[in-house]
Order: sequence, then C-alpha cells, then structure tokens
Amino acid sequence: MSLTAHAFVDAFLPHKTPANQLGHGQAPVNIALSKYWGKRHLELNLPTNSSLSISLPDLGTQTQLSIQSELTADQVILNHTPLTTDHPFAQRVSQFLNLFRPSPDTYFQVDTQNSVPTGAGLASSASGYAALVLALEELFQWQLTKPQLSILARMGSGSASRSLFQGFAIWHKGEKADGSDSFAEPIDQQWPDLCIGLVKVDISEKAVGSTAGMQRTVETCDLYQAWPQQAERNVKTIQQAIEKKDFTQLGETAEHNALSMHATMIATWPPIVYWQPASLAAMQTVWQLRQAGVEVYFTMDAGPNLKLLFESQNQDKVLEAFPDCQVIRPF
Amino acid sequence: MSLTAHAFVDAFLPHKTPANQLGHGQAPVNIALSKYWGKRHLELNLPTNSSLSISLPDLGTQTQLSIQSELTADQVILNHTPLTTDHPFAQRVSQFLNLFRPSPDTYFQVDTQNSVPTGAGLASSASGYAALVLALEELFQWQLTKPQLSILARMGSGSASRSLFQGFAIWHKGEKADGSDSFAEPIDQQWPDLCIGLVKVDISEKAVGSTAGMQRTVETCDLYQAWPQQAERNVKTIQQAIEKKDFTQLGETAEHNALSMHATMIATWPPIVYWQPASLAAMQTVWQLRQAGVEVYFTMDAGPNLKLLFESQNQDKVLEAFPDCQVIRPF
Repeated sequence: MSLTAHAFVDAFLPHKTPANQLGHGQAPVNIALSKYWGKRHLELNLPTNSSLSISLPDLGTQTQLSIQSELTADQVILNHTPLTTDHPFAQRVSQFLNLFRPSPDTYFQVDTQNSVPTGAGLASSASGYAALVLALEELFQWQLTKPQLSILARMGSGSASRSLFQGFAIWHKGEKADGSDSFAEPIDQQWPDLCIGLVKVDISEKAVGSTAGMQRTVETCDLYQAWPQQAERNVKTIQQAIEKKDFTQLGETAEHNALSMHATMIATWPPIVYWQPASLAAMQTVWQLRQAGVEVYFTMDAGPNLKLLFESQNQDKVLEAFPDCQVIRPF
Repeated sequence: MSLTAHAFVDAFLPHKTPANQLGHGQAPVNIALSKYWGKRHLELNLPTNSSLSISLPDLGTQTQLSIQSELTADQVILNHTPLTTDHPFAQRVSQFLNLFRPSPDTYFQVDTQNSVPTGAGLASSASGYAALVLALEELFQWQLTKPQLSILARMGSGSASRSLFQGFAIWHKGEKADGSDSFAEPIDQQWPDLCIGLVKVDISEKAVGSTAGMQRTVETCDLYQAWPQQAERNVKTIQQAIEKKDFTQLGETAEHNALSMHATMIATWPPIVYWQPASLAAMQTVWQLRQAGVEVYFTMDAGPNLKLLFESQNQDKVLEAFPDCQVIRPF
C-alpha cells in the first residue's frame, strides 16, 4: 500500500489500538449487474465509474483475525492451509494489513475460508476483503458505519466495497481525490423471484488479473473512452429496473453492460479475452432460450464463467438447458 | 437504389448506351487489414472510416453480362443456377442494375460464378460487385478509370470498391456528400513473403448481414464513438508497415483493428456476435503460436472465420497448428 493509502487511513481511523484479541468477519460474494472496469486512482482503488451489484448470500468468505505476540510475520491461512509469507495471496493480505498495524512489529494471524474458488472470476477477493475489514472492525472496535467500512474494503479490492451488504448495493464512484466519497451502500429493495445461476466454464486461476487487465484497457483501448459514461447510465437504468421490478430492463441492461465491458477488453492490445469456447457456447444457449421465449440473461466478470439472471418461474427451463447450473436465490 | 444514387450515377456516367452486347468482369475477393464498419450514408454506401485491404488473386467472381431483348426481367444466374426474380440475391443485383439501365424495359442477363462461398464473411459481395462493374464497363465502354469504377462498385457493396485491384488497396472514406471522393486505389507495394491463411469455421449464411449489423452498431453501441478515429489511425499505421515491410506492425495493427471492430458489435444491443466457439479456439491457437515465437496474426470479418496473416518462413508451423488452413500468397 502506498503512502497515499496510509495517509488516508491514518486520518480516517479513530485509533489503531486493538480492543479485542479476536475479530470475526463474514461477507458474501457479489455479482456486479453494472460493472467496475477501470481505476482513476490505482493505489486507492478509485473507479472511473459507479457500479451496482447483487450479493449471493450463501457464497462468500469467513475470516478470523487475531493479533498474536509470538508471531514474527503475518500468518495467513487460506482454506485451512497455512501459506508461506512469499505466497502472492499472503503478500497482498499483509500489504493491506500494513494500513492497520498498531506498530510495525505487530503481526496478525488471518484464518480465512472461501466457499468459492479463489481467483476464478467469482469475486473471492470481494468477499475476502469485506470479511477482513469486518474482522478488523471487531478487533479494533472503531464503530465505523458499513459505508465507512466499505471505503476500507475498497482499498483492498474495489469490488469488496459492495460485499459489505446483502441484496443490491451501489458503489458510488465518488469525485474526491482521497476517495472519501467512493463507498457502497445498500439499495433497500427485495426481489424474491430473482434467481442467479452460476455456469462454471473454468475455475482455474485467470491469466490476467483484474487490476492488470483494467490498466491495460485504460492505456490501449480507444473504445474504452465511452465506457465510463455508459456504465454510469447503466447503473441508473438498473436502479430504476429494481425499483419497478422490471426484469426485462434489468436483464437487458446487465447483459449489455457485461458484453460492453468485455468488448473493451477485446479491443485492448494485447487483447484480453477471458472467454473460452464453452463461454461462447453458453452465451449462444442463453440467446436461443430468449428466442424461444424464456427470459434469461447473463453477466460475466473478468473470467470465463457465466452468471445467469432469470426469475423463479423459468428455473426449470433454465436448468433443462444448463443442467450443471448452480441456482442461488439472493432474497 | 435511392434517388440519390440514381442522380449521382446519371451525372457521373458519360452515357447509358451499350457499346457491346456482352461484357465480362473478373475481380478478386479482398481481406480488409483495417476494416470498414459503419456508414455515414446508407444509400451511397459512404463509410465512416477509410479501410485498407489485400486482394486474394485466386478467389473471386467471374461475371458475364449481356442485354437481351427477349427478357421481360433481369435474369440472374449464380454459380450456374438461374435464380427466381424474387430471390434476395437477384433482387439486390437488379436494384443495382437499375442505376445503369438504358431504358426501364431493358433487362440484363447476369451470369456470375463465385469461387468462394456466398455470404459467409469471405467477401463474395465485394468481388461480385467489382466484377459486375467491370462487366458494365466492358458493355458500355465508358472509359472510366479503376478508381472511378470503384465508386460504382462501392454503391453495390462498400468493400467492393477495394476489389477492383490486386495487391493492397486503400479505400479513402472521402468527405463529400455525393461520395465522389470515396473511392479505392491501389498501393504500389509488393510483399512476396506475405501469406494469408483461410481458417473456415463455418461457411453457412450469417444471421445478421453486414449492413444491418453496421446500422445496429452505429445506433446502439456507445463504444463505437471511438471506432472511426481508431480505424483511420490503423489505416495509416498499416500503410507505413507495408512501406517498411514491418510484419509485426502490420499483424498487430490488423489483429487489433479486427478485434476492435468485433468489440463494437459485441457491445451492440441486441449483441452481434459472429464468433463461434471454434472461432475462439482458433484465436487461442494463434495466441499460443505467438507465445511460442511463431509470428502469426489473424483478422476476421463479419463472420466466424479467421484469416491468418504470416510470412512464408512460418508456413509449416502454421499448417501444423491449422492443418485445414487454405494458404494464399497474394503476390
């Protein structure tokens, strides 16, 4: 973490004195219906555009955090496996924890469990940093609000800002240089019929990480120029769709938004194509279902997997076309 | 054809009196290395951006045109099969011929043979209209130059403007409202080592024709805003690469250009995705070859097929990875 992030956090936190020996955090993964792609500030994870998501209540991260005086380095345990200090995941977590360390020689034990595959475009970093920030809050008892905590989570991973909440959340891109107005908040709307279907094409680690992918897009993709404005408009349209419970508007806007984000990657040089042949086959199946009158849409993150959007009355038809699809009811 | 096209042609042609009973034309297909996508004038086929192509000498169209007094309608014979007058291909040809008819009750027999599959993204309409215009020139003996003939071919199909020439050709988008400066001309450069490899994924007719696809892109794709400028720059970069014989610059720019064009389609709503799963698998093979040090690039038109670009010294390695690839040496 850079000096900028340190300076911000030092001013933002009321103190750095642990109130407890132990902190717990639990947070869901979230699926962006209008995506985050592009940073206006790299170190603070400030986005070029707002985004809007739905959390998946049963998938996410559980983290237990403690300060242990006998440690000489942070100890990161991922899915019951202790990682070496030079493991990329452990290093990233340690760098983030540097922002909160009471003293340079205070070390944390972080015991974290993901119920989703790590690094496969299923947003494990979102739930991971959200859970870690909740555990930090329990440990330090700062009494920060959820939107305030989402600012801290954002500095670990942009999309983590949205994982502080169940249901729909909107991450406002903010305007300020220090990011103090770039936080997420929940949208107070339920949609009991809404279903998310996870179509897993490939759960191996992705070749190009999101941050590197975003940077390359911003630097080399001419078509990206129009993305921030489109994304801002898509957020508003989806927000309206949620208020009206207009599923067609929600689905069309979400699919168009995801395809547009992937389009910016495809038009990047060297190209970033997260799609696999099986991703394209699954998209074609979705379009065939729609042609046949079954209203189903998809969204995709920086990976090859599809997340289907449909309403419960179409679940049987969706499962017929996608027998291995994991259906989640967010509400 | 609209009144605009009629008015333009009437002013452009020296006369409409046939000098011969028969006219022949022969023209190659061309592969755009920097693509044409988007029209600034629909009826005149005026493009939003310039484009640059390479013709494939052995693939194309041969057309024989005659005026026959006993006909009561145009007779279009495609690949030895007479078409009914309500066949879409015959109708399109007849509409184009309306521009040149000596009198309303003069009808043409058009006997045309394509050595490429029709409507499969292999640009049969480009060679088709170019051959037809050459046949018209032989029939009417207007004594027009090739760039002038390319203006007429353009009104049949935009990319046909480039099929008047062998080798590299550049189609200047032009600025004038009547399109009189929107023509193609040859680039006087040879590149004997240059190879084109045709990777046929699917040669069935495409679901969305180019004109409809372009219109939908221009109307609904926000990202398209940046396309015309990128395309204009890509044309210049490829022109420089041809002059310098810089294959890396040629290949990178052509692949980036093609992917950017497809990106604008993907970001259109409803989405236009010409890619098939096998197209994506072929792209991945190209990228793997490059990673392994074999310099090969691809371009793609409004269809699922790939056209590989490589130099002759890599032909064996390309054929190893793509055994069914048809290799063409344009020079």
